[in-house]
Amino acid sequence: MASKLSVEELARFLDEQFPQARGPEVEVLDAELVRLRLRYEERHLRPGGTISGPTLMGLADTAAFFLVLANHGPVALAVTSSLTIHFLRKPAPRDVIAEARPLKVGRRLVVTDVRLFSDGEAASVAQATLTYAIPGLGSAPP
Amino acid sequence: MASKLSVEELARFLDEQFPQARGPEVEVLDAELVRLRLRYEERHLRPGGTISGPTLMGLADTAAFFLVLANHGPVALAVTSSLTIHFLRKPAPRDVIAEARPLKVGRRLVVTDVRLFSDGEAASVAQATLTYAIPGLGSAPP
Amino acid sequence: MASKLSVEELARFLDEQFPQARGPEVEVLDAELVRLRLRYEERHLRPGGTISGPTLMGLADTAAFFLVLANHGPVALAVTSSLTIHFLRKPAPRDVIAEARPLKVGRRLVVTDVRLFSDGEAASVAQATLTYAIPGLGSAPP
Amino acid sequence: MASKLSVEELARFLDEQFPQARGPEVEVLDAELVRLRLRYEERHLRPGGTISGPTLMGLADTAAFFLVLANHGPVALAVTSSLTIHFLRKPAPRDVIAEARPLKVGRRLVVTDVRLFSDGEAASVAQATLTYAIPGLGSAPP
Repeated sequence: MASKLSVEELARFLDEQFPQARGPEVEVLDAELVRLRLRYEERHLRPGGTISGPTLMGLADTAAFFLVLANHGPVALAVTSSLTIHFLRKPAPRDVIAEARPLKVGRRLVVTDVRLFSDGEAASVAQATLTYAIPGLGSAPP
Repeated sequence: MASKLSVEELARFLDEQFPQARGPEVEVLDAELVRLRLRYEERHLRPGGTISGPTLMGLADTAAFFLVLANHGPVALAVTSSLTIHFLRKPAPRDVIAEARPLKVGRRLVVTDVRLFSDGEAASVAQATLTYAIPGLGSAPP
Repeated sequence: MASKLSVEELARFLDEQFPQARGPEVEVLDAELVRLRLRYEERHLRPGGTISGPTLMGLADTAAFFLVLANHGPVALAVTSSLTIHFLRKPAPRDVIAEARPLKVGRRLVVTDVRLFSDGEAASVAQATLTYAIPGLGSAPP
Repeated sequence: MASKLSVEELARFLDEQFPQARGPEVEVLDAELVRLRLRYEERHLRPGGTISGPTLMGLADTAAFFLVLANHGPVALAVTSSLTIHFLRKPAPRDVIAEARPLKVGRRLVVTDVRLFSDGEAASVAQATLTYAIPGLGSAPP
């Protein structure tokens, strides 16, 4: 299924609404898969050269958000309802890849599976499950 | 039960090992409760004036880490194994308070309940449960 | 805040709609706290005398469901959206007590903190966070 | 990678140690995949013909346990440390299939992704992530 917005439309939407989500590069933007690349930078590191947990959590959250947008179109009010993340391996000092796939695309709730990888490695460094809530038109917040 | 390190010892430990965890102020450092205050700053915000999800997740992670230190002493190798967070309410544009309490303090796993509040409000903006794994002396990583 | 239904109304509602949820005894039924007691029985056991994980998960789920009912009244269509449980200690061969408290009571989502205890002990054997989704009148399922 | 025990050895191990885990049929028992089939029976139902949440949680837990056994051999003391489950769709009144795959096989922690399906359907009815803790030889419990 095609994304409801293109990479260019996503970039424009983020510039207007969520400039802080502009960080990672969008490699795939599809209703079934979003793949992001977070460039390796010193500021994401914690001592020992590991990429910090909050950086990984933020990346997983952004990937899930883009998957919501790919399925529902630009809905600025979609909010993270819950996130569960398991840290599996120490990330390498390289780019981090995030792949988000839908577990359920409902009208009000979107549940997403996100895998994070060090670029070029098969075993994931973290797995996250996120739920986004999408407010209805004219309805009260969930 | 008293903390295994003082606020001053914590500050020194962080300066040496985790300078990036120095952000929030430590209001309480005890084996049963860690309370942190994250000063309200523009850079934590996302559009609409809300404090960003990754900022809240990072604060919860730091509070749980300090609780591990309060119970086990300075163990630089303690790592977050998993984190589940539920976002409950939109944070106000004010300081955020994190309160971490132990659910279980084991030799190898510490499970922590963390509540996040907008300063001065009773209802929490988020609840998180974190598991930290503590590598044994001379043992392989978990 | 008072419960929107009495213990007797709850029993009648369950007899009609959810006979399988009749197991545990209701000790407290309030909008802020539901306390249930699961009588110790051989059939809940697994080898070693421990109460099984699924028994504990079912009890946590029932306690959260009753808290939804106490807050929203009898809504037969409320469904568990997600559950996270941490098993903290081996339960003793005694009654299990569940205490459910609301983290958030929204119109569409209710998030609940549940602690499970062996009767008479202070340290909890498990902690769970549950989200219930409540379908709106005439709306599509979440 | 081959399983460290055969289906017959698993059956014998369960008969001796966990007779209550004998319910579902083992369709695949491999270090990379465990597939179980839970036969549709009236007693798993809740009103409306849906298979109950605790039944699904118990099945996910069993599948993850078998994956631990396939990777580590018969370790009777492996215990569920945490479980997060998202209920995605109403199960059909049919057999339920559980597929467990490893996210991480550590010496002390095994993290598993479990998908549950109604037999013959592509979209999963639930997704669970489970952590099993494996006590070390001669060590204290985690």
